Amino acid sequence: MRAVDLIRTKRDGNPLGRDEIEAFVAGATDGSWPDYQLSALLMAIVLRGMSDEETAWLTEAMAHSGARFDLRRLPGLKVDKHSTGGVGDKTSLILAPLAAACGVVVPMMSGRGLGHTGGTLDKLEAIPGFRVDLSASEIVDALGEVGCVIVGQTRDIAPADRRLYRLRDVTATVESIPLITASIMSKKLAEGIDALVLDVKVGRGAFMKSVRDAEQLAHAMVRAGQLAGVRTEALLTRMDAPLGRGIGNAVEVIESIETLRGQGPSDLTVLSVLLAARMVLIGGRAETMEDAERQVREALASGAGLARFRQMVVRQGGDPAVVDDPARFPLAEGREYVRAPRAGYVTGLEAMMIGQAAAALGAGRATAEDRIDHGVGIRVLSTLGSLVRAGEPVLELIHRDGRGVKDASSLALQAIELGGAPPAPQPLVVGEIV
Amino acid sequence: MRAVDLIRTKRDGNPLGRDEIEAFVAGATDGSWPDYQLSALLMAIVLRGMSDEETAWLTEAMAHSGARFDLRRLPGLKVDKHSTGGVGDKTSLILAPLAAACGVVVPMMSGRGLGHTGGTLDKLEAIPGFRVDLSASEIVDALGEVGCVIVGQTRDIAPADRRLYRLRDVTATVESIPLITASIMSKKLAEGIDALVLDVKVGRGAFMKSVRDAEQLAHAMVRAGQLAGVRTEALLTRMDAPLGRGIGNAVEVIESIETLRGQGPSDLTVLSVLLAARMVLIGGRAETMEDAERQVREALASGAGLARFRQMVVRQGGDPAVVDDPARFPLAEGREYVRAPRAGYVTGLEAMMIGQAAAALGAGRATAEDRIDHGVGIRVLSTLGSLVRAGEPVLELIHRDGRGVKDASSLALQAIELGGAPPAPQPLVVGEIV
Repeated sequence: MRAVDLIRTKRDGNPLGRDEIEAFVAGATDGSWPDYQLSALLMAIVLRGMSDEETAWLTEAMAHSGARFDLRRLPGLKVDKHSTGGVGDKTSLILAPLAAACGVVVPMMSGRGLGHTGGTLDKLEAIPGFRVDLSASEIVDALGEVGCVIVGQTRDIAPADRRLYRLRDVTATVESIPLITASIMSKKLAEGIDALVLDVKVGRGAFMKSVRDAEQLAHAMVRAGQLAGVRTEALLTRMDAPLGRGIGNAVEVIESIETLRGQGPSDLTVLSVLLAARMVLIGGRAETMEDAERQVREALASGAGLARFRQMVVRQGGDPAVVDDPARFPLAEGREYVRAPRAGYVTGLEAMMIGQAAAALGAGRATAEDRIDHGVGIRVLSTLGSLVRAGEPVLELIHRDGRGVKDASSLALQAIELGGAPPAPQPLVVGEIV
Repeated sequence: MRAVDLIRTKRDGNPLGRDEIEAFVAGATDGSWPDYQLSALLMAIVLRGMSDEETAWLTEAMAHSGARFDLRRLPGLKVDKHSTGGVGDKTSLILAPLAAACGVVVPMMSGRGLGHTGGTLDKLEAIPGFRVDLSASEIVDALGEVGCVIVGQTRDIAPADRRLYRLRDVTATVESIPLITASIMSKKLAEGIDALVLDVKVGRGAFMKSVRDAEQLAHAMVRAGQLAGVRTEALLTRMDAPLGRGIGNAVEVIESIETLRGQGPSDLTVLSVLLAARMVLIGGRAETMEDAERQVREALASGAGLARFRQMVVRQGGDPAVVDDPARFPLAEGREYVRAPRAGYVTGLEAMMIGQAAAALGAGRATAEDRIDHGVGIRVLSTLGSLVRAGEPVLELIHRDGRGVKDASSLALQAIELGGAPPAPQPLVVGEIV
């Protein structure tokens, strides 16, 4: 099977067979396909697309390109959640312990932030001592004891994806539903999970700007999961303004702890409970969605979720003192306020720009090599729908010695939309694919 | 200007600007664009296409990527001919001296054969001592003295095309009218010519199988030439059966000499005279096509064309004894006959298979590194329309010690189509783009 013939098949709009897709992934994994043939095929896939079956085969071949976790010795179903990426989205930190408190095993493997979106691993590393690089046996032990872990992917998970992703990033072949699907889902399949809840973000701060695109992506991911034998469902949720009030790393962990204490902002609480309840239901710990939600709310109200979070922090080497007293988080000292240029209702807080502003302060990365500052970030002081006076602070920039404040202020100011009337309330969940 | 942004532009179906195309070609020339970005853009061009303007800019940028011949110190217009490749097409060897005999300067830079098509340089190298690697100053001197040369491209001509072509060959990005146009025309522009006659082959033995595809390619090449200031026109000619009766290297040179002596087959003679007359007309040596054809026929009848050919052979180091007595060509000894399996009229001689059969004997190359045998080839004994008896020889295989005879016989036999009535005569020229 010659690479050039396979490229020609896809170029001409014909479907690839399972053996051809496996040959492509094997070539990406063992290096026998040179980069220029991989990138030519990737571009042909972007422009010609892939059927659900081709996408599922690609996903499975990539999942099998490296190590796969075997969690069968742990009792019960293993369930993960994955979000396609937003601004201020710290639901993973809240729902993993909540679902674990309801008896679901949550072996969550997360990523790092890039561009305007944050990364769960970066946030957790704001906790002094917290380790995301557990070994396979440490992960299994921690899951047995706590019921949840949040760790990084080990190097041997889906190596084909690592090579292809690096190439896609520099060849304008990122934006493809089959390729995005295979990249996300292959890593999830390699975790050894039984079920998966997807949170597909849609809106101005999301990768997918339109509901139609988000639905297509959600559909492809759900199909790929199901064809690989993993129960998979997806919610489509809005990402226009940041989720919750904190954007950054320590800032988001603090807000997560507040939420687990029952004192979080309502959008963040509602979405975290909803997603956790989905995990409980799909994980076989409840008969109905109502029952699942009741269990999760109980775990939240009783403090059981917070206790699991604390246990997880301890098990992963973190200092529990910051969990008990979030004021001990080492935040940066600098403060700058972005104020309303005139009076009005806050009708929009553009998530993309606020995410970029936080990155400018040092909370995020422009390239994968950049180091981030866990102590900086942004707090939303006047949320959507608030009536503000001219000069009233809307956003608080938490900066270190002024770094990035100029760029961040300018971006943050552009992010604020004011109007003469409060905005119509938007539903948080705009669709589901089951 | 980042490569990835430029790839994205074309991927999304938007036109590239002249500066963007120049950046791409510069990146291909100086190596600053890695192969994987070049191949991603090439695939996007294959699938999204290019406008006439983009194609012309690409052609010019590639023509300027290396050295350009400056032939302005030679008086008169410099005119070349280029064919898109056929089987048995030795017109270059005939028309270059004929046009030169009519006062046109012909600085012809040719290529080598690959796959089922032959290459003019390979054919000429069947002449003992003939050199195709003249230096720039030798070329100018030879042109001044003889009026024509047939040489290979020097290494410094269109280096961007060399890198891109190698990549296209292994990434299934050959079949693209803008890319084919730019590849061919950039090298022609770098020759420093004033005018160009294109022979775009169409049919079962040609790269372009349909008149529509051939017209599109011809149109794109003519536009690219004209936009670059070179008078360009194209004829569309049939390539279903081989042109003339000889296929190979020495075999084709022998037939060229016979044709220059006025004893060639009629299809080859007609096409050579027609193309040479086009060159004479476009080169400003005749007022009308009738006048141009009359001049060319006179050069043929008087032996002036043959004399120019002999001069060119001498000037390029070849042995003129073989021109004076083609029986001295060192042909291979072996003979094998491919016979009509039953009686009938020869209704088809599939050029593609006959070309492949000749290559199997050693006359052509499967890869660019293969060495060829100049003394082997095929002769057509029973031409299209002949009535043959069962067992009558149709094709003569000239082989060396049996090499490739089995494969060649089988291919050659499949190439022969017999019918109950002579085939309707097909026009040689099926279109022109001026």
